[in-house]
Amino acid sequence: MKSKPVNEMLNSDSFVQPLLAGRAAHLSGRLQAAQGHGAISFDSGHACPDLLPDLTEEAMRALGEHRSETLQYSGRPGLPEMRDIIAGMLREDGVVGATPSRVIVVNGAKHGLDLLCHLLLDPGDTIVVTAPMYFTAIPIFRGFGVDYIEVGQDQEGLSVDELEEALKRHRSAGGKPPKFIYTVPDFHNPTGLTMSLRRRKDLLAIAAGNGIPVIEDSPYRRVRFEGTSEPSLAALDEHGLVLGLGTFSKLVAPGLRVGWVFAPEPVIARLIQMKTDGGSCPLTQRIVVEFCKAGRLAAHVQTVQGRYREHRDRMIAALARDLPDVEYEVPMGGYYLWLRFPSGTDTDALAARALEAGVSTIAGSRFYAKQGPRAGGHGELPRRHMRLAYTHASPREIDEGIGILARTCRELELV
Amino acid sequence: MKSKPVNEMLNSDSFVQPLLAGRAAHLSGRLQAAQGHGAISFDSGHACPDLLPDLTEEAMRALGEHRSETLQYSGRPGLPEMRDIIAGMLREDGVVGATPSRVIVVNGAKHGLDLLCHLLLDPGDTIVVTAPMYFTAIPIFRGFGVDYIEVGQDQEGLSVDELEEALKRHRSAGGKPPKFIYTVPDFHNPTGLTMSLRRRKDLLAIAAGNGIPVIEDSPYRRVRFEGTSEPSLAALDEHGLVLGLGTFSKLVAPGLRVGWVFAPEPVIARLIQMKTDGGSCPLTQRIVVEFCKAGRLAAHVQTVQGRYREHRDRMIAALARDLPDVEYEVPMGGYYLWLRFPSGTDTDALAARALEAGVSTIAGSRFYAKQGPRAGGHGELPRRHMRLAYTHASPREIDEGIGILARTCRELELV
Repeated sequence: MKSKPVNEMLNSDSFVQPLLAGRAAHLSGRLQAAQGHGAISFDSGHACPDLLPDLTEEAMRALGEHRSETLQYSGRPGLPEMRDIIAGMLREDGVVGATPSRVIVVNGAKHGLDLLCHLLLDPGDTIVVTAPMYFTAIPIFRGFGVDYIEVGQDQEGLSVDELEEALKRHRSAGGKPPKFIYTVPDFHNPTGLTMSLRRRKDLLAIAAGNGIPVIEDSPYRRVRFEGTSEPSLAALDEHGLVLGLGTFSKLVAPGLRVGWVFAPEPVIARLIQMKTDGGSCPLTQRIVVEFCKAGRLAAHVQTVQGRYREHRDRMIAALARDLPDVEYEVPMGGYYLWLRFPSGTDTDALAARALEAGVSTIAGSRFYAKQGPRAGGHGELPRRHMRLAYTHASPREIDEGIGILARTCRELELV
Repeated sequence: MKSKPVNEMLNSDSFVQPLLAGRAAHLSGRLQAAQGHGAISFDSGHACPDLLPDLTEEAMRALGEHRSETLQYSGRPGLPEMRDIIAGMLREDGVVGATPSRVIVVNGAKHGLDLLCHLLLDPGDTIVVTAPMYFTAIPIFRGFGVDYIEVGQDQEGLSVDELEEALKRHRSAGGKPPKFIYTVPDFHNPTGLTMSLRRRKDLLAIAAGNGIPVIEDSPYRRVRFEGTSEPSLAALDEHGLVLGLGTFSKLVAPGLRVGWVFAPEPVIARLIQMKTDGGSCPLTQRIVVEFCKAGRLAAHVQTVQGRYREHRDRMIAALARDLPDVEYEVPMGGYYLWLRFPSGTDTDALAARALEAGVSTIAGSRFYAKQGPRAGGHGELPRRHMRLAYTHASPREIDEGIGILARTCRELELV
């Protein structure tokens, strides 16, 4: 991408065209959806608008008594109280050794992932990802020029047998050990699957045995509708191999851009060094701190859980009514349904037509790090899946949107 | 830095130690100063605390009527109104072609610089910087594995003759063209120098002739105490070679983390693609938008100008009284004095002793991209300079701090 001389890129039309063409290929679903004006949004990780909390009191305190903290540059590690609160949340999750010194505050979990990639990756490195995987992480990884080992999932989450096989194949082919395993163990994006305890332990054993760190990206863990949580990978980690990513985006509001990395102290120390951004915003950190100190977080998370459970159930009911041939696992939390359409369906075409008809979705093909023909038994890029978020749309919109999707399917003679 | 296996880094003490040692070498002056508890701060780019504006009304509007904008993910380009305002400011500065589509909002100018580096740089590339240069940019550049061509400055700013010579030498030595020229033309950090109009034109002519883009980093342009501004490089640019970095940190408050990149549209399109951070914080953007729409920006900038002029004059008076042998150019704006101590002075030692005595400063050696013995006529790393910020400390603290610095000099028998 950077092989042309820069002046050519800036001046000549010949560079401008491929540049713009490349852009379209990378656009996230969210941006594409923004082009479908007024479409019902099943595509985004946005919050339900009326679940956005009233943060005016917190902001008053932040900009009043805390002004000299919130309007100056902040330290790179994050506000001490913010790190304290995050460490406390991790301890609540069973991470016994979670201290503030093992936390760095970042501008959302994606920023944390970017920093970890900077720390760990060199071009040509290999990483392990699930197939499908969180699609916004794909361009981040791609920017570092990595190769992928893709591993599938079943109802217990990431397939450790497949992982072991793949690592063995990679090793016999002379490959260097992967730099990390990236996964979302709780309410996986896009599949909604949660790893069983047994799988978590097996994953960590394989990671430890092969000396491969695990990046545990866990934005949805507390957005649980029923059942009890399995211990996080960080809680089970005995070897300091887990690098955790967390965020307040799904617990308070995405717009605040407050997330964190949890890792062994030497890693945090290096991330602090590398964080050359003038510090993460102290104003939004302070707003979150005040929200938590006022005891509002737990109550708000409960509200979020209750509401999104209703949304999930509403979408499931609408699907049962309008699209009975579509299959999916019922997620016990998180944001998404991962639909499997009948064999032969091309969800790329379906998503495009559905957007024209007024509902934005994301085709399953977008969730695979490896594009094109696939090795390792995965065959061609899967085309029969689609991710639907049930969070942002209202219950009424959920009914309407599934109705539109069903009509579009019938028009395309898919069902 | 990344050559050791990751598991070794995470687990073994042998990796942990060099990691921490490396950290200390990279720490910014601001972080070091934070260790000198209660020291008078001449080291930072912080605002004077009582110049931090009251933003509570703006925040109320942002979190009230604009809640569904400010608490959701925002678009990658930035809020449309924010881009509009920035384009308007650029047009005020004479950049005739400044449209919102040529602006991307970022988390402060450092984030913009990081994105530009990602877009343009490959390891082993060469860039042109001033010597001395803005020291926080050095670890950003270093992270991309670049080589430097250093160019000196005189009272008219960046020395274009030296630049031409250096480019010629670089070319004859078989070097690829540098990827960009990075400079701060208005109230340069750390020297306070402002480029003359002639130099600006010559710089752009050389850049155009050699096909090298120019990154114009201009955080201080509106913090002018006297005289009139020269046209910005962006305003003089006829070839689309100037990539501009701006920020509200020095105009409203650093803690908001709202900055921008101004560039040709194809470059902005690529930056939008690369900005995988979930969008810059819409809440702080909206606060800035409301601040500007209420007409407060111009008035606040005038207040800032008046106050920092007083601070600068106070520091100059204190230096004339307590350290008459120290030389400097009087800056007509910006944040810093660049002191030149008598020949033989080691300002690294001086800064360390001054910090113990209660005043934090930054030694000149920190402002050079190339460490160790220097080619191109620069000889050894210069050790007789020191940067003092007159902005953060109060007038009383300025007197006191210069007094401490002078006493420390006498103790070290420097003056």
